Amino acid sequence: MKRRADQPEQPNRQDIEEVAGNGLLHRRALLGKGMAAGTLLGSTLGPLATGAAAEPLTEPQWGLEIGEDTPPYQSPSKFSQKVARTLSNPKFEPRSSIARTPHHLLEGSLTPNGLHFTINHTGIPQIDPGRHKLLIHGLVKRPLVFTLDALLRYPLHSRPAFVECGGNSAPLFSPKPIQSDLQALHGLSSCAEWTGVKLSILLDECGVDSSAKWFVAEGGDAPHLMRSVPISKGMDDAMIALYQNGEPLMPGNGFPMRLLLPGWEGNLNIKFLRRIKLVTDPAMTFWESQVYTEPMPKGKSYNFTFINEVKSFITRPSPGVDLKQPGLYELSGIAYSGKGKITKVMVSADGGKSWAEAALQGPIQSKAFTRFRLPWRWNGGPAILQSRAWDDQGAFQPTRAAFVAERGQLDREPPVTAFRNHHCNVITSWAVSSSGKVSHTYA
Amino acid sequence: MKRRADQPEQPNRQDIEEVAGNGLLHRRALLGKGMAAGTLLGSTLGPLATGAAAEPLTEPQWGLEIGEDTPPYQSPSKFSQKVARTLSNPKFEPRSSIARTPHHLLEGSLTPNGLHFTINHTGIPQIDPGRHKLLIHGLVKRPLVFTLDALLRYPLHSRPAFVECGGNSAPLFSPKPIQSDLQALHGLSSCAEWTGVKLSILLDECGVDSSAKWFVAEGGDAPHLMRSVPISKGMDDAMIALYQNGEPLMPGNGFPMRLLLPGWEGNLNIKFLRRIKLVTDPAMTFWESQVYTEPMPKGKSYNFTFINEVKSFITRPSPGVDLKQPGLYELSGIAYSGKGKITKVMVSADGGKSWAEAALQGPIQSKAFTRFRLPWRWNGGPAILQSRAWDDQGAFQPTRAAFVAERGQLDREPPVTAFRNHHCNVITSWAVSSSGKVSHTYA
Repeated sequence: MKRRADQPEQPNRQDIEEVAGNGLLHRRALLGKGMAAGTLLGSTLGPLATGAAAEPLTEPQWGLEIGEDTPPYQSPSKFSQKVARTLSNPKFEPRSSIARTPHHLLEGSLTPNGLHFTINHTGIPQIDPGRHKLLIHGLVKRPLVFTLDALLRYPLHSRPAFVECGGNSAPLFSPKPIQSDLQALHGLSSCAEWTGVKLSILLDECGVDSSAKWFVAEGGDAPHLMRSVPISKGMDDAMIALYQNGEPLMPGNGFPMRLLLPGWEGNLNIKFLRRIKLVTDPAMTFWESQVYTEPMPKGKSYNFTFINEVKSFITRPSPGVDLKQPGLYELSGIAYSGKGKITKVMVSADGGKSWAEAALQGPIQSKAFTRFRLPWRWNGGPAILQSRAWDDQGAFQPTRAAFVAERGQLDREPPVTAFRNHHCNVITSWAVSSSGKVSHTYA
Repeated sequence: MKRRADQPEQPNRQDIEEVAGNGLLHRRALLGKGMAAGTLLGSTLGPLATGAAAEPLTEPQWGLEIGEDTPPYQSPSKFSQKVARTLSNPKFEPRSSIARTPHHLLEGSLTPNGLHFTINHTGIPQIDPGRHKLLIHGLVKRPLVFTLDALLRYPLHSRPAFVECGGNSAPLFSPKPIQSDLQALHGLSSCAEWTGVKLSILLDECGVDSSAKWFVAEGGDAPHLMRSVPISKGMDDAMIALYQNGEPLMPGNGFPMRLLLPGWEGNLNIKFLRRIKLVTDPAMTFWESQVYTEPMPKGKSYNFTFINEVKSFITRPSPGVDLKQPGLYELSGIAYSGKGKITKVMVSADGGKSWAEAALQGPIQSKAFTRFRLPWRWNGGPAILQSRAWDDQGAFQPTRAAFVAERGQLDREPPVTAFRNHHCNVITSWAVSSSGKVSHTYA
């Protein structure tokens, strides 16, 4: 695929040379300034746009008629109905309700509020923000009660942060690749701009006793979900979040207030937060002793795996977002790390034999989604697409083989109800067939 | 308000000294590290939080019952119903429909999609994205037609950008301050993360003829709204936007694709974009020759006022978001400039006699909302709150008096149907009465 000297008609051909196997192009190829007028992507790389005829343009019906009225709160087009969360419990039976984000149909670095993932164990409470209260007590000099009105008088702070369930990506513990889509595999992770009061300010208000090493956060809905958090996180970047992408929190995401622990396991980010109690030791609640422990191959368990380690996945193409014809595509995906900023994402089109560095969409922010993109020329043959991310703490995604060697895997394909595991951040692989169909694979 | 030597019990009193008249505090006061434990904002500055009693906590009903089910696309709480757009045409009569963003109830740097302002002249078209096409033609080597599927194969780009109607803030042309709220005065400006294809890439695909100096963009809904844009903007940061805050565009904001001209008058950002025609001269369409011209005091008009100049306003407190009692508050607001990045926002509590520099929430991004905040101790007396922003091109907001001297004002209070004017970016003033009520004033 090297440029040949006998191709003078395409002076920018070097922009579209492969930098890694099976069609991966340089991350800056095709990006404006480097392209001279006349580098027709379509004619060079495959038919993207089609030639146009003369005026007049045809008039679809929507150009000839009055449209619909304007609502106070607008919603997506009826043609975007597939851009929706999948529900684990659509009949609302007496068990948890899980809604997953459709990453394969989204772009950019944020999850819109309508599509942020949620997990609620007894439905979504309808909390009156005028009556809700937050108590901070325990090992403090002055136990205090904060109303929403009071919190709004404190210094506020905004930041993007992903929230990810510890169980996100758990299907990749299966010994065989589960044939499902990105939404099913990695849909329990979302990213929003959160605004609220830094917990450290409120803890200062209460006066933390030097004997306090942990705090227990409790939710106000029926499960009264409780988790123990080291006080050091509370004094670092913990926030009482009040707004999500600019508006008050969504009911499923904790309205009117939630604990936000950027980069830490979703279940710790207590929603409908009503209490923070400072204590000397972790409470070993149900959720931390029974659920969010990670069983190891030889019968032991990790405990308190707080951080969601660095992860990435390609969102487009992905299962269900197939390729229609050979030619140029952009590979697009999401990377994030609970430890800090993404520094590098490498992409492979040949199952890991060779890698090219993806472009990262800035500004890159700590513990937030970073969109990565890379142009790819699909030659119509089989391909295995992978992404692998690095963070600024030196962490990087393990291959599935390396991860399984340490953490084990399921002994049979799910559904497996008796076995839970969490914090899987292995490389995800998409197989592209010669028909353009994309499926989940291990490579 | 200077610290006195006889106040040894408050070692951090200097953190809350005034830096400008009528109670403005330093922008870094109260922000965590500077505060020692024991600086109780409530006791020092007024009652924010209240002391707490012993356990057990009381149980509101929502902590004792099953909540509601989980929808595929989630919506705000029923308790957030006031967090809605106001509608100019709620009965959907045969005229334009305008929906304004409730900035006084929002926070952070983004407008959530449900609340982005919209103006539509014949309702909101229901466009099938599978049938919609974008034609680029005129003075190009190769006229081309792009489908949504084709555009998704090009390199995408994400960026935050505000969109603001040229008529936003027009009520401040009134000779007397209109007694309305922030939503009515400045609600025709919103900010989102947009993702799409840079127009320069598509123009390169088509091959721009050297005689092309402008392009005319046309919308696909019934008004077929057309505006002329210099080709230089098209080759700079113009984008064919496909996603808004991560999901496909809202119907009212141009689904399935719109022109985005960051920092330029909203009406130019053609929604439902179906055509870009490259031409030698501006087309002098209805919208640019009849509507979006700015009449001057002596009968002449500006023409082609593209850029939305630097602006800011305080969102909290503001009319309807009143103060309940003296003490500590955070002043919060939004600043932006169509020329670039916000570099400074100054805040006054005494009607412009003295000013303090607000904290800017980073990362500060070009042509996007920048949230500013400043702590303020309200002493219970009258105050006039103002904000004034500067951008990195050296532009700054004019006082209303200076602006009126150049641009004029209405000769009587609206409603005035025969007079249009645009691009007002004067300093906004909120009067706070001793009862805590906030109202619009000129100062």
